[in-house]
Parts: sequence; structure tokens; C-alpha cells
Amino acid sequence: MGKEASINQIDLLFNPGSIALIGASHTEKKLSGAILKNLLRFKGKVYPVNPKYKKIMGLKAYASLSELPEPVDLTIIIRPAHEILKILKEHERKAKCAIIVSSGFAEIGEYKLQDEIKKIARDTGIRILGPNCMGVYNPYHKLDTFFLSRERLKRLKKGNMAVVSQSGAVLSCLFDALGAANIGISKAVNYGNAVDIDESDLYDYFIRDESSDIVISYIESLSNGRKFVEKAKELSEKKAFLLLKSGKGSSGQAAAYSHTGRLAGRYEVFHSILRQFGIKEAMDFDELVDTAKAISYQRTFKKSPLPPFTKGGLGGIGNRVLIITNGGGSGVLASDECIKQGLVVAKLPENRIEKLGKMFPKFYTISNPFDLTAQVKDEDYIASLNELKDDFDGFLIIALTGVLGVTERLGKMMKNLKVGIGKPIVFHIAHGGVSRKLTAILEKAGIPVYPSPERAVKVLKSLLN
Amino acid sequence: MGKEASINQIDLLFNPGSIALIGASHTEKKLSGAILKNLLRFKGKVYPVNPKYKKIMGLKAYASLSELPEPVDLTIIIRPAHEILKILKEHERKAKCAIIVSSGFAEIGEYKLQDEIKKIARDTGIRILGPNCMGVYNPYHKLDTFFLSRERLKRLKKGNMAVVSQSGAVLSCLFDALGAANIGISKAVNYGNAVDIDESDLYDYFIRDESSDIVISYIESLSNGRKFVEKAKELSEKKAFLLLKSGKGSSGQAAAYSHTGRLAGRYEVFHSILRQFGIKEAMDFDELVDTAKAISYQRTFKKSPLPPFTKGGLGGIGNRVLIITNGGGSGVLASDECIKQGLVVAKLPENRIEKLGKMFPKFYTISNPFDLTAQVKDEDYIASLNELKDDFDGFLIIALTGVLGVTERLGKMMKNLKVGIGKPIVFHIAHGGVSRKLTAILEKAGIPVYPSPERAVKVLKSLLN
Repeated sequence: MGKEASINQIDLLFNPGSIALIGASHTEKKLSGAILKNLLRFKGKVYPVNPKYKKIMGLKAYASLSELPEPVDLTIIIRPAHEILKILKEHERKAKCAIIVSSGFAEIGEYKLQDEIKKIARDTGIRILGPNCMGVYNPYHKLDTFFLSRERLKRLKKGNMAVVSQSGAVLSCLFDALGAANIGISKAVNYGNAVDIDESDLYDYFIRDESSDIVISYIESLSNGRKFVEKAKELSEKKAFLLLKSGKGSSGQAAAYSHTGRLAGRYEVFHSILRQFGIKEAMDFDELVDTAKAISYQRTFKKSPLPPFTKGGLGGIGNRVLIITNGGGSGVLASDECIKQGLVVAKLPENRIEKLGKMFPKFYTISNPFDLTAQVKDEDYIASLNELKDDFDGFLIIALTGVLGVTERLGKMMKNLKVGIGKPIVFHIAHGGVSRKLTAILEKAGIPVYPSPERAVKVLKSLLN
Repeated sequence: MGKEASINQIDLLFNPGSIALIGASHTEKKLSGAILKNLLRFKGKVYPVNPKYKKIMGLKAYASLSELPEPVDLTIIIRPAHEILKILKEHERKAKCAIIVSSGFAEIGEYKLQDEIKKIARDTGIRILGPNCMGVYNPYHKLDTFFLSRERLKRLKKGNMAVVSQSGAVLSCLFDALGAANIGISKAVNYGNAVDIDESDLYDYFIRDESSDIVISYIESLSNGRKFVEKAKELSEKKAFLLLKSGKGSSGQAAAYSHTGRLAGRYEVFHSILRQFGIKEAMDFDELVDTAKAISYQRTFKKSPLPPFTKGGLGGIGNRVLIITNGGGSGVLASDECIKQGLVVAKLPENRIEKLGKMFPKFYTISNPFDLTAQVKDEDYIASLNELKDDFDGFLIIALTGVLGVTERLGKMMKNLKVGIGKPIVFHIAHGGVSRKLTAILEKAGIPVYPSPERAVKVLKSLLN
């Protein structure tokens, strides 16, 4: 089978015309029933397969794949592990792709069974996602193969970010966190044990997928290291790509192994390879979400303060950061984190210090961090930014709204200013009062806001270098 | 003056009978007016001092300290820096303690002025807090000297945690974060440039303060390293004490210096001294708040799963952690973070594996992390904990509520179980559905819940070793 055919087959995972659910049940209390409920929203054909029923959730049911009135693009299989081989053998000429949701394979030591599935994929040419996975979500195609109810896990709106996760748990936690950050997605996929379709195949697909400008990915292990590096590098060059790799330490590796049955490899080696090829890495779950938010805002809002970087949107700019704050201690915490992250809290140029000294009250600290104190006014942030915008690569603005001088106006003023700056700006906002409204105005203007100085700095680090 | 007299004087900071506000103004738009508004809730005498007014916010105003009808326990001074010396000289026999809110001293290079204040404190015996600080908050005494309005910064309810912060910004951000975690406090103090009363004096006070069982502290620099270590060590032995030190790197040090005019010192040396003396450290703002929450729950709820540890409540237990999860990937992330934090994700004992294998479905991963998969039921968490509680020192339970098998019942079951376990238990909960209710039930029972696996692990680390 040629490469193009294979890519087209992967596209059928995300954009099938027809689907058979093998192992469909009539109650949402079972995972297979929860999947069917979610498939009812799909606009194409859905065929429930279960020999025990004539009708399931209002749809005509079929005893087996071979009894369907037509071949389908995609099957979703949720039956005990020992039945899967037989079911797959029925796929020839009946289906082009299969998602195996069931677990009970390499992750619990059943390598032989998993190898036989691999062989079938190779022999028949059907492409297989899983086993031990939740499958795919495509809001543009109303496709949702997850076994989690929409009441229990809110689905993400349409957007331009693709999510590729080896783990279903992490994918679902990402849905939770990205939803809270008001981020939309293009497609999401959980590939589990990766017996056939793996991270590299999916990266290859997303390099070409026009609806995805950003790709974030969680992986524990690799099918093929060389292929991974090649595809991840190409993806990083074409789009904004951000990776979270777990299974870093020895117990983590053991956990990753028993989770999906693939060995995680030595993390330090992996980490240095990523650096070498310009592939961007988040260090933990919170950093993945925080950075994804900044990139999403950058790509969603045309007049975002985050420019279209080289390296597909991440890094390669410089590392000189200006911190402007109205709370001294918060500035010190931010400064500490900058150093930890390899960013430079560079001194202000001498000529600017002189000019700024004349502009502001004597008790402001005209330095970096630039401390506007509790007596700050909205205009002070704008004036200092305007004066210093050419001397730094990125900006962290800390606005503690406990003081009366910080108002909603700051949001509007920043919106006007950011285009002229054209460099990454992130905010840390705390306290009550106008904080919610100010956050909403800033984020609508594409400027991301974080709840601690350290989290804001980690994002700046990803955006800058 | 004897040591006892000095301690009694510091108590007047938190429990004064009478207060004069020097520089009071009639509008909340000024910091001095905001302070007066907050002082109106105070039950003792409040004297506004300002020669320009006869009455301010309904209170009789006085032209100077010497015109007050009686000496006061405490003054709060908010006048330009160059007036402070003259004002302090009027304090003799008129006031016992002073909080200097004003800035414009060592933090902007005015060392000489600050030294003269120091000299007055020594010569007259009045104790001085500040300058460049927000002062104190004591909910038990309805005392609130902050210049931030209650609308802009929510005040904390009564509790058993004292907060000692060099920075006013960090103190106010702690109010924000501790309030969100539903934590009450005994007293809070921001001491700024520490010309007289410093961190060690305050630690000494809280060693004795019966209403404070827990002390958290943010510092950037030290007045006296030897005295600090002595007092911090004693505090760690008597109470649960947790410290966040910033100004760690060289720019951080510069920022800390310009913020309060004290040199931050080499962090690595400081860090190793803390370890040596059993003084517990949080590594960033989020870790400080997350751990404070766990300790607060431990001390607030008598039947908390966190035992009354040696070392005043933190550490010294062991480092063997069991992770029980219903999401494989979340367990791997937790495992990674355990290794990073020096915790051991120890293997299950052979005899337990056999027994557990008979208790659970074949597709559960009976290992550490213990993966109960998406097919989990509430009872599975309890059964596995019961079986393994004697083999580990601390427990991380991950409950992703996207699956129907996780219900509110888990909260009630954990509440009953935790007393029997008597070891630290922390939860990571994500997704929608019952997550809010389950979190509320667990936290009411003294079991803290965190929004990511990594954050939960960092807290376990602080509780264990």
C-alpha cells in the first residue's frame, strides 16, 4: 500500500463516513453504551453490532460485521481481549480502520495476543488505533468515540489545536484543563498501546492537516525512535508543537511500561535529542496546559502579542525578560524562576533609567523587576512598557488588583499596545476586585494570564527559547 | 529592656488596646484612607492623626501624637519618608510600637535614613515594624492595618495558621490563595525592610503564641543568619513550620535587594543549612500554598489522615509512596514526580500481589502505580488501600471522575477509612461530574485534593520527608 493511501486511511479515523460499534450495549452504565450514546451525535451512518439485540438506543442492531448492509470506514471494538482477533479477521473488505478500545494486551503482559493483532494489521492493510485507548474526537465532524459521558467530561469547542495522547487519562485531563482555559481544538486522539498507528503516524498526519495549527502531545514511550525524531522535527518546523514526555525516572518507566506495554527509554538521552532538533518540551502537566493556552491565544487572535515565530511558533527569539510589577515580592519570585529557566532578567539601559526616573515618583524602583509599588496607576504599566519595549525579548506583567490603581482600563490599554510591541507578553494577576474582568479582557485580546509568577515565567520560557 | 518586655511589646502589634493612625486621610482612594476604613472594624480605641482635619470618617482627629488624650499601644505611620524621623521622636512615652507603612528607605538606596530609624528604635525602646510594609491582620482581635480594601482583597477567616511575610505583595497573594483553599489563619504579618522587628523576632513570638499551630513564612533576606537558624529550628520543633525563600539566583538577589534593601545571601548555602536543621522548605509559591493546605487540614480536622508528626507536623516519616489510580497516564506522571522529589514508588510485596490478583479483574494492573482502569468502582480504592496500607508511608489516590464508577460515596468511604490508616493521604481529582462534591466531602474530612498529579506529589513529599 502506498504512503498516500495510508494517510487517507488515517484521515478516515477522524472523518469517517460510516461507523460500526462492535460490542454496542443499550445502557450508558457500560463503556460500550456510553460510546454509542456519544456516537448518536454523529451525522454519518452508525451501525451497532451485538447479536443479542435487534435494536439498541433506537438504531437497528446487527449480529456481526459481515451482516452490515455496506462496508464501513471505521469500526470501534469494545469486546473482551480474547475475542478481538476473531473480530479483526472479519474486517477484510468490510472495514478500512478499527479503533480497539478494549484493554488486556501488552499492558498486562499479553504480548503474544498483541503481536497477533499487529500481524493482522500488516496482512490485511486495515489500520488499527489502540488497543487500550479512547479513540478520537473531531468537533468539526461531530465524531466522538470516547467512553466518557459528556456530563462527566465536558467536550472542547472547535479550534485549531490538535491533541495527540498515548494515555486516555491524560487526554481526558487535558480536555478538562483546556476547557477551563477556553481553548478550542481541531482533533484529539488517544492511541494507547500503538500496535499499528503510533505517534509518528499521527504527527505525519497533523503536519498536513490544514485545520490544525498547533499540536500538543503526551507520550510515555516510542514505537520507533528514528521515525519519531524525524516526524516531530518536521512537525516543529511546520506548526507550533509541544510535547510532554513521561516515564522519565526508573519507576516512571516501569509504570509507563505496565501502562501501555512499551519501554520508555532513558529520559536524559531523549531530552537532549529533543533539544538538538528544536522539539519543544513541557516539563509537567501544568506547564503543558499553561503553554498550550499561550500558543492557542497566539494563533486564535490575529492581533495577538505573540508573533508568528520561527520554529512553527515556539522559541528562537531571545531570552531577555522585563518584569513589570506592582508587588515587590512577586517580582522577586518571578526573577528567581527566570534564572531557574535560563532566562535573563537584564538590567535597564542607563539612558532609559534616567528618563524613567523623571517620569515616575521617587519611590518606584526603576530596575528589573520594575516595581511600580502599591501606588501604581494603569498608565504606569503602559508608559514603562512603551519606554522599554525595544530593549527586551519578552515581558511579564504582574498586576495585583488589591490596589485601586489597577482597573479594567489596563486591559483595553494593553490591547491597543500589544500590536506595536509584537513580542511575547504574559500576565500574572492575583487578588479580587477587577481581577476576573481584567483577565477576561486581556485573554480576549490574546494575552494569557496565570495565577502565580512562576507559572507565567515557565510559559515565557517556552515562547522565547 | 528584658526579653519578656520585648515579647510583650510584639504582642501589642497583634493585640493592641489602642491605635493612632498618623497620616490618616478621609478618602479610601488614598492608602491612608483605606487603612482607616479597615481600622473602623477594630473594637479598641482608634485615633486618626492629621492636622488638616477635625474629624475623619466620623472619628475625632488629632493634630499630632502629643495631642492624644492617652498614650497608645500602637501607631501606624503613613507619611512621606523624610517626615518619619520627626514623627518617631514624638513617640517616647506616647506609644509602645509603631508600624511604618511608608516606603522610600533602603529599598531605593536611602540607607542613612533607615539607619537613623534603627537608632531611634534602639534608643527609645519602641518596637518598629517596617518600614515599607502592610503591617498586621488578626481576625481574633478584629485588627486589620492593610492598605488594601476588603472588596479588593478578601480577608481570611479565623484559624490556626500564622503567616509571616517579608513581602506585602506575597502576603496578599497568600490571602487570595489560602482563601480559595478555605484556610483560616490566626495572625498575619508583613514586616518589610525589618529595621527593628525581623523574621526571627516574629518566629520567637509564634513559638509561644497558643493560637498558632502552623506557621508559614516568605522571606527574601535575613537580618541575622545565626538568630534566624536558631529560631526557625525551634519553631520547626514546636509547630508545623514551612518556609519559602526567594532571591535565590543572582538576579533574584538583586531584585530582593532593591525590594527591601537587604542582601539575600547565597541560596545553596542557605538551603543546605535548612536541611541540616530540619527546617522545611517549599520551592515556589504554588507549593507553599498546596502544602499549607494539607497541614492546615491536618491540624483543623481532628480525625485527619495526617498524623501529628514529629518535627512539629512535617516530615520524618518515610518515603515509600503507593499510587492508586483509575487513569494509567496520570499514574505515570505521578510516578515521575515522585522520583524527581526523592520519593520511592516501591514495589508491592509478592504475597499481596497474589491476593489482590484474586480480588480484582484481570485487566487491572496490580503494581505501583496500582491501575484500577476506567472500569473502577469506589470499593476498589478502599479494598486496595486496606490491603496495602501497612506497606507504605504515604498514599496518592487519583480519581478521574469522568467514569461512572467514581461517585460521592468514595468521599464517605475514605472518611471512615483514613483514621485506621493514620498516614498521609492526598488526592488528585480531575474531570467534571461529581468532582466538586467529592472534593468538598474529602476536604471536609481533612483529605486535601489537588488539580494535577505533580502538585499532589510535591505535597506528599513535604508531609513525608
